[in-house]
Amino acid sequence: MTKMKFKMSKKPGIPKGTRDFSPIEVSKRNYIFSIIKSNFEKFGFQPIETPTFENSETLMGKYGEEGDRLIFKILNSGDYLSKANDEFLANKDSLKLTTQISEKALRYDLTVPFARYVVMHQNEIEFPFKRYQIQPVWRADRPQKGRFREFYQCDADVVGSNSLWQEVELVQLYDSVFTELGLKGTTIKINNRKILSGIAEVIGASDKLIDFTVALDKLDKIGEDGVKNEMLEKGISGEAISKVQPLFNFTGTISEKIEKLALLLSSSQEGMKGVEELQFICENVTEIGLQSANLELDVTLARGLNYYTGAIFEVAAPEGVAMGSIGGGGRYDDLTGIFGLKNMSGVGISFGLDRIALVIEELNLFPETVTATSKAMFLNFGDSEAKYAMKAVTKLRQNGVKVEMYPDKAKIGKQFQHADKRGIQFAVLVGEEEIKNEKFTIKNLTTGEQESLSYEDLLKKLN
Amino acid sequence: MTKMKFKMSKKPGIPKGTRDFSPIEVSKRNYIFSIIKSNFEKFGFQPIETPTFENSETLMGKYGEEGDRLIFKILNSGDYLSKANDEFLANKDSLKLTTQISEKALRYDLTVPFARYVVMHQNEIEFPFKRYQIQPVWRADRPQKGRFREFYQCDADVVGSNSLWQEVELVQLYDSVFTELGLKGTTIKINNRKILSGIAEVIGASDKLIDFTVALDKLDKIGEDGVKNEMLEKGISGEAISKVQPLFNFTGTISEKIEKLALLLSSSQEGMKGVEELQFICENVTEIGLQSANLELDVTLARGLNYYTGAIFEVAAPEGVAMGSIGGGGRYDDLTGIFGLKNMSGVGISFGLDRIALVIEELNLFPETVTATSKAMFLNFGDSEAKYAMKAVTKLRQNGVKVEMYPDKAKIGKQFQHADKRGIQFAVLVGEEEIKNEKFTIKNLTTGEQESLSYEDLLKKLN
Repeated sequence: MTKMKFKMSKKPGIPKGTRDFSPIEVSKRNYIFSIIKSNFEKFGFQPIETPTFENSETLMGKYGEEGDRLIFKILNSGDYLSKANDEFLANKDSLKLTTQISEKALRYDLTVPFARYVVMHQNEIEFPFKRYQIQPVWRADRPQKGRFREFYQCDADVVGSNSLWQEVELVQLYDSVFTELGLKGTTIKINNRKILSGIAEVIGASDKLIDFTVALDKLDKIGEDGVKNEMLEKGISGEAISKVQPLFNFTGTISEKIEKLALLLSSSQEGMKGVEELQFICENVTEIGLQSANLELDVTLARGLNYYTGAIFEVAAPEGVAMGSIGGGGRYDDLTGIFGLKNMSGVGISFGLDRIALVIEELNLFPETVTATSKAMFLNFGDSEAKYAMKAVTKLRQNGVKVEMYPDKAKIGKQFQHADKRGIQFAVLVGEEEIKNEKFTIKNLTTGEQESLSYEDLLKKLN
Repeated sequence: MTKMKFKMSKKPGIPKGTRDFSPIEVSKRNYIFSIIKSNFEKFGFQPIETPTFENSETLMGKYGEEGDRLIFKILNSGDYLSKANDEFLANKDSLKLTTQISEKALRYDLTVPFARYVVMHQNEIEFPFKRYQIQPVWRADRPQKGRFREFYQCDADVVGSNSLWQEVELVQLYDSVFTELGLKGTTIKINNRKILSGIAEVIGASDKLIDFTVALDKLDKIGEDGVKNEMLEKGISGEAISKVQPLFNFTGTISEKIEKLALLLSSSQEGMKGVEELQFICENVTEIGLQSANLELDVTLARGLNYYTGAIFEVAAPEGVAMGSIGGGGRYDDLTGIFGLKNMSGVGISFGLDRIALVIEELNLFPETVTATSKAMFLNFGDSEAKYAMKAVTKLRQNGVKVEMYPDKAKIGKQFQHADKRGIQFAVLVGEEEIKNEKFTIKNLTTGEQESLSYEDLLKKLN
């Protein structure tokens, strides 16, 4: 037992919040990536990639105080303390020392690096610029179920176009990806920052807007009275609440909802602009038609409130799957202002890879072929047989067939077992007899069926 | 000028040694990745992925003192100084402080994380395990032309098999990848650590082995006398040199070279084992045949001398292209020993993505289709025309055609210019007339040809 314990403690680990991905996991994730990617390209988006780490000043201050804390910083190389401030060291002032011993930090999202990219390369870029980016990001968050310190983001954004057709296309893009993934019945929720501003204007309480939407979002759970009580508790006046009474019975088709909003927000110029935008997007999406997703107008949707300036999107998994949002996005009117390039409107959406993978797993929607390993394994009966086998293996590969040969002349049972454990469908046997007759004996490891084939027939069978 | 300077200084940058990749660059790199990947899979390798950062103890001490210095360390989160040693701080002892304020570090290569992976997951893995891994690595090297601080490695390794068929297949794998990339005439150099040990034994100077091979490698440039002088200068005795006289006229076919080595190393048991291994690999590779690469036995090849224990590989670009090696690898008998799992032999090869991309660029071998953008751009003549166009765009995308619509009702000249600058081949015009006749006017932007097509014919034309 002591020996065992010793061995256990020597075993290496990985940092918390990170993951190893096994062949099956990589294959499943690549399946999702490839569908997202091919749809991005069908919709005219082009790939860019940015470095894993950025200069700290590019990232710091862009995600709020909490964000700054969650950014992974890279220690400067070499004698990094030589120029450090003695006082900071003596006081063990971690915060102040950081900027002196660390100049680089890991990417925290893909939006800020994209903004930085657009500003740096503005003279090479032909606007409007539709870019996609599929890369990992890192956050020093407390890891928990479904939340990791390293995870992928899959973003598609357009920069340099105010056209609402972008929003129409982004809704279609969500529909297209989820349809191709077999994930039917997702709900694409849409709202508009200007609608929210309009509501705030009408109730005369801009500072209470988040409290208001959070409470309103509970309508299904706690009922109209419950919601109103919560609003009152949060300091929203009864008068204000009565002004937006229609929101408590906010049902009907999208166009009926838009009509209600137009009445409700008629006194707010910004609110009415939001109504107009929503109308354009929803009308066109509805008329052109979605393949499998449902579009829903959700006035409680307020993600990234301080960030978005127009449309806000969020995607919910099909009903019955308990999972937070599997995608989100929106329009932000001043994407690149933080880096000195003004008046660049951006609009984009993001796909949550980890959650999408969990949903597809739960609904058993991964095609069997995704995790396909080699099509056949040639058994090894010794060097001269192996040489004959390897010639066939080589030709098969040149014809695009995934095959392999067991590398050692091990016991045949062991070789069969290896093929079986690897999930390989066929074993090919080449012994003296086969070499003499220029044949290959192929055995289906599932059915046990066995036949003797020429090389040409073998190729046909495996191709 | 002052204003300009001010603007310039505000412009964001990226850390030295890192790169942004534009759409064309990403597409070109993805083209290479996808050929490497599909060949890895044809040869039975399966993908794994490991985290970007590892626990420091996993990486430190594995790459020598220089390596330790070049590893990027991540600063601990939070109040990282609270438990730091006061003396280290007072003395500004960067080296000693590092382990107290940093527990994680960026991946330096893919081999050590792979060894860690094998040990951690040994109970789930079915051996022999053929894995491939295509991920970036980071080194705090001084950046220079063609050397970056962030770059991709593409590795294929087999662990848990002593069979020399692995080496045969790895040579074939190189050949297969470079052939498919159109890179014909690469030279796959092969040597064996045991041959080098044998030479050291024969000349009685193990400690001078590197000096010996470095000098011998200059034979073409400085001639036999030059090489011998350099060896003498390095302290290799004339007697020792005369013992390996055949190496100074080391020409002929591979089998002739192997015969010479067998004579030369007959007194060294290890050397003769190396001869036997080389013979097996080269004979089988030659008999089965390579598609476009040349196999060359190079006794001066000594890369990673302290690391490899058997075969050593290196690939040179086709003649006439000035470029260092574009790939390398070999066998290392104790891959996982560093993490406590003994007797796991590994053998693998690596592809140098950046250099391969440079070679393919220089030889103009990227297919035109690699950087293909959308097939057609629909012009925008206003909202009602755009809606009609978007219906066709949507259907075309559902049929897998990459198309887009210009988002705004801009001047037509501007729209054409955008399509042109983006390298889009066709423009599709939809005005009142087209809507009335249910037609689409398609214009070839290269030839200027224009025709009026039904949706079905449009689909045929673009598909």
